[in-house]
Amino acid sequence: MNIPVVENVLKLNDEIAAENRRTLKDAGVVTITLIGSPGSGKTTLLETTLKSLGNDLSVGLLTGDIATSRDAERLAPHSPHVAQINTGGSCHLDANQIKQGMKQLPLDKLDLLIIENVGNLICPVGFDLGQDAKIGLFSVPEGDDKPAKHPRIVLEASLLVLNKIDLIPYVSFDRDVFYGDLKSMREDAPVMELSATTGEGIDNWLDWLRRLADEG
Amino acid sequence: MNIPVVENVLKLNDEIAAENRRTLKDAGVVTITLIGSPGSGKTTLLETTLKSLGNDLSVGLLTGDIATSRDAERLAPHSPHVAQINTGGSCHLDANQIKQGMKQLPLDKLDLLIIENVGNLICPVGFDLGQDAKIGLFSVPEGDDKPAKHPRIVLEASLLVLNKIDLIPYVSFDRDVFYGDLKSMREDAPVMELSATTGEGIDNWLDWLRRLADEG
Repeated sequence: MNIPVVENVLKLNDEIAAENRRTLKDAGVVTITLIGSPGSGKTTLLETTLKSLGNDLSVGLLTGDIATSRDAERLAPHSPHVAQINTGGSCHLDANQIKQGMKQLPLDKLDLLIIENVGNLICPVGFDLGQDAKIGLFSVPEGDDKPAKHPRIVLEASLLVLNKIDLIPYVSFDRDVFYGDLKSMREDAPVMELSATTGEGIDNWLDWLRRLADEG
Repeated sequence: MNIPVVENVLKLNDEIAAENRRTLKDAGVVTITLIGSPGSGKTTLLETTLKSLGNDLSVGLLTGDIATSRDAERLAPHSPHVAQINTGGSCHLDANQIKQGMKQLPLDKLDLLIIENVGNLICPVGFDLGQDAKIGLFSVPEGDDKPAKHPRIVLEASLLVLNKIDLIPYVSFDRDVFYGDLKSMREDAPVMELSATTGEGIDNWLDWLRRLADEG
C-alpha cells in the first residue's frame, strides 16, 4: 500500500519541479538550492553573499523553515526580493512550495534565485525543486565525519562548501578525514572552503556564482 | 489517499513503541533518546558520559545513522553493549528498528539504554521509539535561533541540553535570544548547559542520568 503512494508523491513533485525549471529558464533565472544542517551557516552565507555581490547580480531568495520567518527577516535588508516558506513541520521544501514562492518574486527582474532549504542534511536532497544546481553546505564544528554520513548530498551536489573554517583552531576537525571520505565517495568532488563570518574564501564563492549565472 | 497511509504507518510505529516500552520496563531498563542536528555533539557527549559514569550504571547504546557505523565504533571502546542501526536513507529511527536493535543487547544486564537518533532536529521528534525521555541537544555554533525554529523538540523534550559552550567566545550566540525564545514557548523548559569536550557541566548531566535511572 505504501510504496505506490510515495511514488505518486515523488512523481507529482518531479512534474512540478520540471514546470518550475521551465518557468525559470524562460525568465532567464539561474537557480540554486542551498542544503545543510541547522546552524551550518546557510543564512549567514546568504547575508554575506548579498552584501558582497552589490549590484553585480539581481538575486531573489526563497527561504524555507518549519517555523518562524527569521531567515527572511535577516535577508530582507539586503535584497528586495525575499520570500519565506514555512513548511508547517515538513523536513524539506517541495516543488509546489517553490512554485507558490516564485509567484511572490519578479522573476523577469532576477538573474539568480537562491533557495535556502530547511535545515536538514537528509530529506531535502531527495526532492527536486527545479534548481540548476544543488549546493551542499558543511561546517567545521559539525565535525569531519559529516560527508561520510551523508553520501547522497556528496554525490549529487554541484558544489560542496565547507563553512566556518575560522573555527578550526578551536574544535577537533581533521581535514585528512574530511577530504579522504569525500574523495573515496567521489574522486572529483568540487569543494570550496570559506568563512561566511570573516569573509575568508568568499571571493571564490562569488566567482562561482557569477560564472554559474553567466552560463545559465 | 495519502493521509490514511501515513496514519497507519504512525499507528503501527506507536504499537511497536508501546511493545518496546513494556519490554524495557519489564527488564528494568530506563531508556532515553538523544535528538540533535548532525554535529551537535551527540556521540561526543556519549563518549564523555560513558567514560565519566565508570561502573555507576550499566549502559547500552543503540546509535542510528543513514550510513557508516562510525558512531558505534567510537562508542564500543567505552561499553560492551553497543549496536549500530543504519536506516538506509531514512531521516529518523523507528520503533521497529529499535525492536530489532534491542535483540542485540543483553537487556537484563542494563540499567540505562541510550538511543542516539539520526542527526536531524525534525523527523526524529515525531516517532515514538518506546523511550522514557527525549533529550533535545542544541549546540552553540548552530546559533541562538535554533529553539525558535524547532518548537516541537522544545515542547516535547524531558531535558534540553546546550552543548559546546566552550565555543561561545568564538561565535555569535546571544543567550538572551536563546532563553527568551525557549521561555516564550515553554516557561519551565528544563535546560542544561555543558561542553562534552572540556567536561564543563558534565556532572549535572551525569546526576540527571543517575536520578532518572534511580526513579525508573
